[in-house]
Amino acid sequence: MRWDVVGFGEAMLRLAVPTGERLETTKQLEVGIGGAEANVLIALARLGRRTAWSSVLPRNTLGERIARELAWHGVDTSLIHWTDEGRVGVYFLDVGVPPRPTVVLYDRAGSVVAHVDPLVFPVEWVSESRWLHATGITPALSSGCRAVLARLVERACQSGVGVSFDVNYRSRLWSPEEAARTLEWFCRQATVLLCGEDDARLLWGLSGDGEAVAHALSTRFGAAMTVVTRGEHGAVATTADGRTVIVPGRAATVVDRVGAGDAFAAGFLHGYLDTGDVERGLQYGVALAALKLTVRGDLAIVTAEELESAVAAARRTILR
Amino acid sequence: MRWDVVGFGEAMLRLAVPTGERLETTKQLEVGIGGAEANVLIALARLGRRTAWSSVLPRNTLGERIARELAWHGVDTSLIHWTDEGRVGVYFLDVGVPPRPTVVLYDRAGSVVAHVDPLVFPVEWVSESRWLHATGITPALSSGCRAVLARLVERACQSGVGVSFDVNYRSRLWSPEEAARTLEWFCRQATVLLCGEDDARLLWGLSGDGEAVAHALSTRFGAAMTVVTRGEHGAVATTADGRTVIVPGRAATVVDRVGAGDAFAAGFLHGYLDTGDVERGLQYGVALAALKLTVRGDLAIVTAEELESAVAAARRTILR
Amino acid sequence: MRWDVVGFGEAMLRLAVPTGERLETTKQLEVGIGGAEANVLIALARLGRRTAWSSVLPRNTLGERIARELAWHGVDTSLIHWTDEGRVGVYFLDVGVPPRPTVVLYDRAGSVVAHVDPLVFPVEWVSESRWLHATGITPALSSGCRAVLARLVERACQSGVGVSFDVNYRSRLWSPEEAARTLEWFCRQATVLLCGEDDARLLWGLSGDGEAVAHALSTRFGAAMTVVTRGEHGAVATTADGRTVIVPGRAATVVDRVGAGDAFAAGFLHGYLDTGDVERGLQYGVALAALKLTVRGDLAIVTAEELESAVAAARRTILR
Amino acid sequence: MRWDVVGFGEAMLRLAVPTGERLETTKQLEVGIGGAEANVLIALARLGRRTAWSSVLPRNTLGERIARELAWHGVDTSLIHWTDEGRVGVYFLDVGVPPRPTVVLYDRAGSVVAHVDPLVFPVEWVSESRWLHATGITPALSSGCRAVLARLVERACQSGVGVSFDVNYRSRLWSPEEAARTLEWFCRQATVLLCGEDDARLLWGLSGDGEAVAHALSTRFGAAMTVVTRGEHGAVATTADGRTVIVPGRAATVVDRVGAGDAFAAGFLHGYLDTGDVERGLQYGVALAALKLTVRGDLAIVTAEELESAVAAARRTILR
Amino acid sequence: MRWDVVGFGEAMLRLAVPTGERLETTKQLEVGIGGAEANVLIALARLGRRTAWSSVLPRNTLGERIARELAWHGVDTSLIHWTDEGRVGVYFLDVGVPPRPTVVLYDRAGSVVAHVDPLVFPVEWVSESRWLHATGITPALSSGCRAVLARLVERACQSGVGVSFDVNYRSRLWSPEEAARTLEWFCRQATVLLCGEDDARLLWGLSGDGEAVAHALSTRFGAAMTVVTRGEHGAVATTADGRTVIVPGRAATVVDRVGAGDAFAAGFLHGYLDTGDVERGLQYGVALAALKLTVRGDLAIVTAEELESAVAAARRTILR
Amino acid sequence: MRWDVVGFGEAMLRLAVPTGERLETTKQLEVGIGGAEANVLIALARLGRRTAWSSVLPRNTLGERIARELAWHGVDTSLIHWTDEGRVGVYFLDVGVPPRPTVVLYDRAGSVVAHVDPLVFPVEWVSESRWLHATGITPALSSGCRAVLARLVERACQSGVGVSFDVNYRSRLWSPEEAARTLEWFCRQATVLLCGEDDARLLWGLSGDGEAVAHALSTRFGAAMTVVTRGEHGAVATTADGRTVIVPGRAATVVDRVGAGDAFAAGFLHGYLDTGDVERGLQYGVALAALKLTVRGDLAIVTAEELESAVAAARRTILR
Repeated sequence: MRWDVVGFGEAMLRLAVPTGERLETTKQLEVGIGGAEANVLIALARLGRRTAWSSVLPRNTLGERIARELAWHGVDTSLIHWTDEGRVGVYFLDVGVPPRPTVVLYDRAGSVVAHVDPLVFPVEWVSESRWLHATGITPALSSGCRAVLARLVERACQSGVGVSFDVNYRSRLWSPEEAARTLEWFCRQATVLLCGEDDARLLWGLSGDGEAVAHALSTRFGAAMTVVTRGEHGAVATTADGRTVIVPGRAATVVDRVGAGDAFAAGFLHGYLDTGDVERGLQYGVALAALKLTVRGDLAIVTAEELESAVAAARRTILR
Repeated sequence: MRWDVVGFGEAMLRLAVPTGERLETTKQLEVGIGGAEANVLIALARLGRRTAWSSVLPRNTLGERIARELAWHGVDTSLIHWTDEGRVGVYFLDVGVPPRPTVVLYDRAGSVVAHVDPLVFPVEWVSESRWLHATGITPALSSGCRAVLARLVERACQSGVGVSFDVNYRSRLWSPEEAARTLEWFCRQATVLLCGEDDARLLWGLSGDGEAVAHALSTRFGAAMTVVTRGEHGAVATTADGRTVIVPGRAATVVDRVGAGDAFAAGFLHGYLDTGDVERGLQYGVALAALKLTVRGDLAIVTAEELESAVAAARRTILR
Repeated sequence: MRWDVVGFGEAMLRLAVPTGERLETTKQLEVGIGGAEANVLIALARLGRRTAWSSVLPRNTLGERIARELAWHGVDTSLIHWTDEGRVGVYFLDVGVPPRPTVVLYDRAGSVVAHVDPLVFPVEWVSESRWLHATGITPALSSGCRAVLARLVERACQSGVGVSFDVNYRSRLWSPEEAARTLEWFCRQATVLLCGEDDARLLWGLSGDGEAVAHALSTRFGAAMTVVTRGEHGAVATTADGRTVIVPGRAATVVDRVGAGDAFAAGFLHGYLDTGDVERGLQYGVALAALKLTVRGDLAIVTAEELESAVAAARRTILR
Repeated sequence: MRWDVVGFGEAMLRLAVPTGERLETTKQLEVGIGGAEANVLIALARLGRRTAWSSVLPRNTLGERIARELAWHGVDTSLIHWTDEGRVGVYFLDVGVPPRPTVVLYDRAGSVVAHVDPLVFPVEWVSESRWLHATGITPALSSGCRAVLARLVERACQSGVGVSFDVNYRSRLWSPEEAARTLEWFCRQATVLLCGEDDARLLWGLSGDGEAVAHALSTRFGAAMTVVTRGEHGAVATTADGRTVIVPGRAATVVDRVGAGDAFAAGFLHGYLDTGDVERGLQYGVALAALKLTVRGDLAIVTAEELESAVAAARRTILR
Repeated sequence: MRWDVVGFGEAMLRLAVPTGERLETTKQLEVGIGGAEANVLIALARLGRRTAWSSVLPRNTLGERIARELAWHGVDTSLIHWTDEGRVGVYFLDVGVPPRPTVVLYDRAGSVVAHVDPLVFPVEWVSESRWLHATGITPALSSGCRAVLARLVERACQSGVGVSFDVNYRSRLWSPEEAARTLEWFCRQATVLLCGEDDARLLWGLSGDGEAVAHALSTRFGAAMTVVTRGEHGAVATTADGRTVIVPGRAATVVDRVGAGDAFAAGFLHGYLDTGDVERGLQYGVALAALKLTVRGDLAIVTAEELESAVAAARRTILR
Repeated sequence: MRWDVVGFGEAMLRLAVPTGERLETTKQLEVGIGGAEANVLIALARLGRRTAWSSVLPRNTLGERIARELAWHGVDTSLIHWTDEGRVGVYFLDVGVPPRPTVVLYDRAGSVVAHVDPLVFPVEWVSESRWLHATGITPALSSGCRAVLARLVERACQSGVGVSFDVNYRSRLWSPEEAARTLEWFCRQATVLLCGEDDARLLWGLSGDGEAVAHALSTRFGAAMTVVTRGEHGAVATTADGRTVIVPGRAATVVDRVGAGDAFAAGFLHGYLDTGDVERGLQYGVALAALKLTVRGDLAIVTAEELESAVAAARRTILR
């Protein structure tokens, strides 16, 4: 196997307002990159996994910046398709402090990846990986993105490559109805289905405690493993055979919320992949998400050693 | 009516130490402006109200900076009186983090507005507004400022313009005795009297819970509406006919405390002015104050939309 | 007359790399705004002229930021048309230091002003101004922009409003041929035609010294006043009756080149408008451009007093 | 007496990552200095005590920076021995936010003070002070440092100079066994012995509540005063005659943890020295440590006035 | 002798705009201190001279900051008189880049030193120094300052202490006529008289080349040594017996002009004091001024070694 | 061939003072990396060459930072040998502005690469590259480094791999005599010998104009190509058969001098390698060095496109 985990999606330029400032008046923006799949693959690469990210980028300074940042963190960027024209998406982050919410101003319409041609975009590389990580953002970007992702998932399933699918509903991109309809198919293909509590309610009207939601999703989509994330309240997983594991959340001083869900997904995969141990997966997911909250930027710039001791510390403080 | 709310007072240059630094050793100061009345009028203008600020400023870069910042936020600056000589006041903020208090080093003595000549300074413009907002800081600046404000309040009362008066005792400017004596008259003229719990105790020896203090102030000064602010504990209002409304405070991660009281006043007026609904006033006041605490600077750089959703969120979490 | 000078065009968010850094690796971007017409109107407003800027902006934080910055500098923003949807253009500036050129990465395609509907967009306000300033960028943005500008110029000519037209060829927006063809009509309507030496060569193949170029442009388009700008080498003006005035350039330590041409245009109009004195116009233009070069950002943040003494200083050092 | 308190040890260049950034990716480091003894002496000098710091520094810019910073805060630097060669130690601080711990990357091996020659380094100056403050870090640096400190302590005891010894175990410098063996002698000489709860467990296997640990240490080493620090839980002191005083911790918003222990030691000495009042010592120690937590850097940049009001405020909120 | 050079005057808080920004719009100000005499004494202390600065400062954070910064650089601050009330002067620097001049906005009226009481302020300490450095700014601050400086100069002359007097005319403080009248006496007492070419013209109408001006000043005031500074053109000195030495200026990339004149004075004294060698004095003065131009802030943060090699380099490039 | 160019040497953490600040007083340091061979390989990788860097790094955050930065720019880091212990070298840059020189404070003694064991360190990889770039710094670090480099050069020569050797004398590391003696052998093996004019004088007493120095070096060491760099005056190359090519320097606004020599070497190799065209090599070298001067940091963060147009622009302005 050439890679442990691969993914396809969009990465954007992230322009964030310094803490306490507002986008309307700030004189400085902090520059970074972000994108759900890229965030997960970067976090995994930093933890020692071989990962590769596939996407489309324009051959300009911003496109190169995105690719180089992935390379810094150790992600293989050879799958990127480069174009002469087109733009990268940009998002402006008015980073909030409670009770003021973080406001995201997306300027991603017409980004180059949305124009991807699904008929010619290569997908065979997915067979060279142990695992494919996908999110519900990519199908929302364009019909081309949707088709490419569907082909990747299909091929992964055919080749015995595991698929994790993180629902990740984005209300600025489509309606809950449209999302529910489109994502249904993807959810059904997933080996591991990840879904936030709020998304389960918005898309499929599922409510109740985390456990109930996990069971409902498990029943509905039949994933081998269904994981419901509950923000600061931790996460719940249900296996296809009905076993449930609950891991509580961890208190953290929040420096930057954005990317915490992706850090959870990366931590879960890191803890789960080699062992198939769900509890371990949840523990790593919760710990990596908590560490991510303390770092500016979308990325979980965390070492394997830091993650291990955070998990160990959490184990010491949990009574069973 | 030309304006919704007008005010007269001092605005100063605000020079703030970055979080965690001290004034003694910092190499950088963050530049802004602030002043009780200006803060209120700016917040209201941002929420869509037509406001104007009257003051005296010198024709130098710092004077112009103050006026231009008001214009940025939409406050009408045509009432400012410009002089060839004189200085603007400056205050240095050693922004604290609990348990270290914020320390303010005022350098406002001899600022140009303190030299205002009450005999020639125009006041007739107050009749063109629905409302006059005044604070207890202005009478403390000089006898000239006191006289101008008295003339404005008088004229407002004669013209049927509503008057809100925020006691705002400043111990660096005068003693509690002198303040109590001087502010008595202003408090008696107010349609809406705003007073912090601590100020009520220091100036008039009023103690007890917020409700008791509100009643005592109401009895003493006879305002149509008396509002007692209690910091993180919320606010209490008593109408002249003895009805009392209590709104609890809101938890907030404090980035900068300065200006929160002014944000409360602005929020209160915004919620109260059109409807005469006291509870709505308190809710908007508490919400805007909480949002202000999350923003660096004296100013409540908050949109009407953000305020509305903060109020709505608070309503959802309050049991009655 | 309600205004001295008005204009219509696009203003964008300007994101600039700190000096010595590169866009690929910088962690910070400096935020500002810029746009040829807006730059000119801001500079003129700061010098005491009543100016107004017309454009289309989306009702989001970036749209409001642009409008508020214009208000800070004193430009009337009541002509702006606000939309619920759409984006503002963005440009990234990799600010150069010789011999490294400044690189501009435009991300302006699909900005909201390009979608302007010329049939419904109001133009009658141009008659309330003494002068209209237009540039060759606006017709390049979209057919809608071209049509709006044409209607404005037409109406200005009908109402006796003076028109300055700054050619401002942008190679990223269209080819020299298309620009030459389209701008021909606008150049013919101009009372004052401004054109950079390089643009004259690229669009109309005019070469030779500045004087020759000015004469050729004057002959071709017949403007009452034709001004050729020559960067650090100053500027040349030719009147319709063939009189030529030359003003040499001024040495400046370059902090930021962007916006210097707009500062020249503003300075020229400021010096020329009241007196019709060409030499005075050129002197003010050259001086304001030189001062602009010393300030970060597109905008000539310069006071009337500073401009006057720069002009006076230049006069003292020029031998005739 | 020439000085109130003196000390000998290492001060290093402190290079700290901005909050929310990581050492791996940050583009900026904040520069300061730090060192256990220097931190204590600086805090005491700022509170009005005459203090002097003895050490070895190289005559280069970094050595001079360390000495000048001590002079800024009022510490006498005339005891520093200057060398032509050698380096200052450096430590990189990846400042943490819970649950991410602060990570210190020391680069102090081979620093100039470790090469001190104990046979020629002067120690007689200790007799000119009322008090000597020493820590368990210095003996860990080199055999030379250990010998110099031993000679200083010996001479202090002979001259009736009080000695405070803060155990301060550093796991990156030596093993618990080696530290326990070496520090034994120093602990026995101390008039005031300060020890963190964790260090007591690691070095001497002492556990139980703070009081039990304090008694055990008191019995073992026989100091006139034994103080056990318990981080956010406050501190406990036991006198040689078995009297115990407990002072609870103070809540603080943590900006920077590093140096809080040294601030405690300085506060304790400041409160204790003139009066011999243990409770006062603990109160000042706890208050100064809490204030230090709110300031970036190793140093307790706090005024005597701020410390007094923090102590007074704490007294008001403690029920007995 | 206790000190090599002493001085009396005002030091202010210096708040400077970052390069390329303007005071009207900057969000950040760089904090420093400055004052003609303090600048000279700091530069000399850094070069190894024992210096002391006398002044009046208020016991607040800004006053302490000024004193501590002097201590950092090694100046003895024990002569400072501390008051409970009063303010320090502040100046705002809109740092210019050619052709935009640096604009200074002084806010120094009513600073505490201006209220000095000349009858009680001690002056006897001047006898303990080899040299007194005075400037023409101090007599302009108030009659009290003038009287204190006069008493210091008198006592210096009586005690055989050398006096350097730097004319330093400040047009914002007084008219040329008043300055010329008042400074006459001081100039006559000076052992070394320093005067800028422009000041000589403005105050005493002296023009011609530097040599002619130096002779005229020498004749008029009779100083043992008269030095005329000519900015980038270097300096000229004339001894009482008519010998003239000319040293050309040095090219420098200007980072910050403010304080260059004070650096010249410090360099001159450093080169001249021990040897009485005028040429050496001028060389050190010119070199230190050039080095100062490359450093942000009023202060010549330069080491003796750097100054020596700059002087040596200049000697190598001068043909005689 | 696996790589175009490879190299072995030390890369350090670079901590630079912001322009106009001094190391003694700055509160911020800019973080980067640098090292002669790494700088060259990074520049070449950015221009599209396949390069690899061999060295020893400790497995800590600073070691990883260095490797990741190389990966960002596209250099293959698989040849790095990782150790559990040891430190990376650090250098502090007091960036100068004329006439103040840049001061480098090295803290590189005992860095991990100096402890390399030449008997076990692998060198066979050099045969997989077209070219080896070496510098005279590496042999100065330790006998181990010298031996490793000698083995690499030997193997390169045996395998027909071209060798460029840049003399790069560092006076802080060894004396001219020792350097001349040691480097003699390396110079004799070089296919391309690069040497600065100053180094040729200091090490081998060669003076005269650049051409004379190049001939003397060529005669002495017999390299196929000898290149003498002359800073702002350009460069001269002499082939073994006595043909000489001279390329003049290029004016540049200097933002940061450090790394310009390495940029020259990289540019030379880039222009020379495929064509063997000396003049082209010199032109690319001079152009890349000039572009590097405009960028903060050791690295030539320049695109191939920017280099090509700089070379083209230079060709247009050179008369032959």
